[in-house]
Amino acid sequence: MPDDPARIRRLPEKGVDDVAVINSILDEGFICHVAYLSDDRPVVIPTLYVRDADSVLLHGSPSSGIVRATRRGSPLSVAVTLVDGVVAARSGFESSINYRSVVIHGVGALLSDEERGRALDLIVDGLIPGRLGDIRRPTPLELRKTAAVQLPIEVVSAKVSAGPPEDDVADIGTGVWAGVIPVSTHYGEPVPAPDLEPGLEVPDYLRRFRGSQ
Amino acid sequence: MPDDPARIRRLPEKGVDDVAVINSILDEGFICHVAYLSDDRPVVIPTLYVRDADSVLLHGSPSSGIVRATRRGSPLSVAVTLVDGVVAARSGFESSINYRSVVIHGVGALLSDEERGRALDLIVDGLIPGRLGDIRRPTPLELRKTAAVQLPIEVVSAKVSAGPPEDDVADIGTGVWAGVIPVSTHYGEPVPAPDLEPGLEVPDYLRRFRGSQ
Repeated sequence: MPDDPARIRRLPEKGVDDVAVINSILDEGFICHVAYLSDDRPVVIPTLYVRDADSVLLHGSPSSGIVRATRRGSPLSVAVTLVDGVVAARSGFESSINYRSVVIHGVGALLSDEERGRALDLIVDGLIPGRLGDIRRPTPLELRKTAAVQLPIEVVSAKVSAGPPEDDVADIGTGVWAGVIPVSTHYGEPVPAPDLEPGLEVPDYLRRFRGSQ
Repeated sequence: MPDDPARIRRLPEKGVDDVAVINSILDEGFICHVAYLSDDRPVVIPTLYVRDADSVLLHGSPSSGIVRATRRGSPLSVAVTLVDGVVAARSGFESSINYRSVVIHGVGALLSDEERGRALDLIVDGLIPGRLGDIRRPTPLELRKTAAVQLPIEVVSAKVSAGPPEDDVADIGTGVWAGVIPVSTHYGEPVPAPDLEPGLEVPDYLRRFRGSQ
């Protein structure tokens, strides 16, 4: 796991490949953890996000901590972490996980009424691709009850840990099994709402949800 | 998702059931996201953790941000989030995820040399239950290269979102499929390290890793 989180690099110093890696991590996830300041103390919470070009979009109640911090120009830190494996090394010191993570730092911008509807659409479409064509549009009241924050992907670091354990040479051949247990997210069979009309079929985009089946 | 992260409650005000829920969430996860201050800005990173009675234990390099913040008495915020489902509601506003999360706030304590070995053991055992009996013990050099932080589970909030979509009455019966896609973590077949001795069998505790198979 990262032990030097201060390794923050600006995108212009990174190659195109790195931007592609960052974007691929951001596009695979849908939950981030956002840190913000509340009375000068750090607070971290999970929330949904979506990448929109070179920004990430967050939403929340207008009174939420993320929105209040953004309103006063206070910085955010946003982490997206995908776990790929558990690394069973021959020592505790080398035991770890394989993962891909992105951390973005910056001051967000609150989106205007006009921009907010699109941001909410993108967040729903990021969570459930294909869903937007089926669902009811937001009402003016719902839009008033929601704030959206745009955070540029400018000050950002990505870390990727992959591959087999990296054991000390002296530990190899000592009769201890070593390797990696692959970790992935499994999406099950959709469970219909109790108030669903009889006979409604699960839409194709949910049957094929994020590669399941 | 949580929109009022300021809802922080002290354990003494919560019932035993709540402590049980908090502990069950902390015991199911192994990755947390930790927010700390770096030059008065919030930084969030993923890291491993384990619950030890009424604390969580973290580890990192002695120069890592979490350890440096703890050394100067600066507070941490630690979130553990387990995703249980994607909620496909009939409106974007009600679309969300089912999840269980715990957020702990407080100032951590750096563990002494004596305590650190046990803390690292607990973190490895939390990640791979049963593993400790097989692996090499930490060397004095490894222990010097690792710091461990103990954070009491005192100022803590837990949130659990479960069940079907909660659609507006007016949206029900409109011919839109609604329900939940279950989300779980899948552990695959263990992949042996390339440098593994031929003929070594996967240990039982890895075959049955976290309920797989």
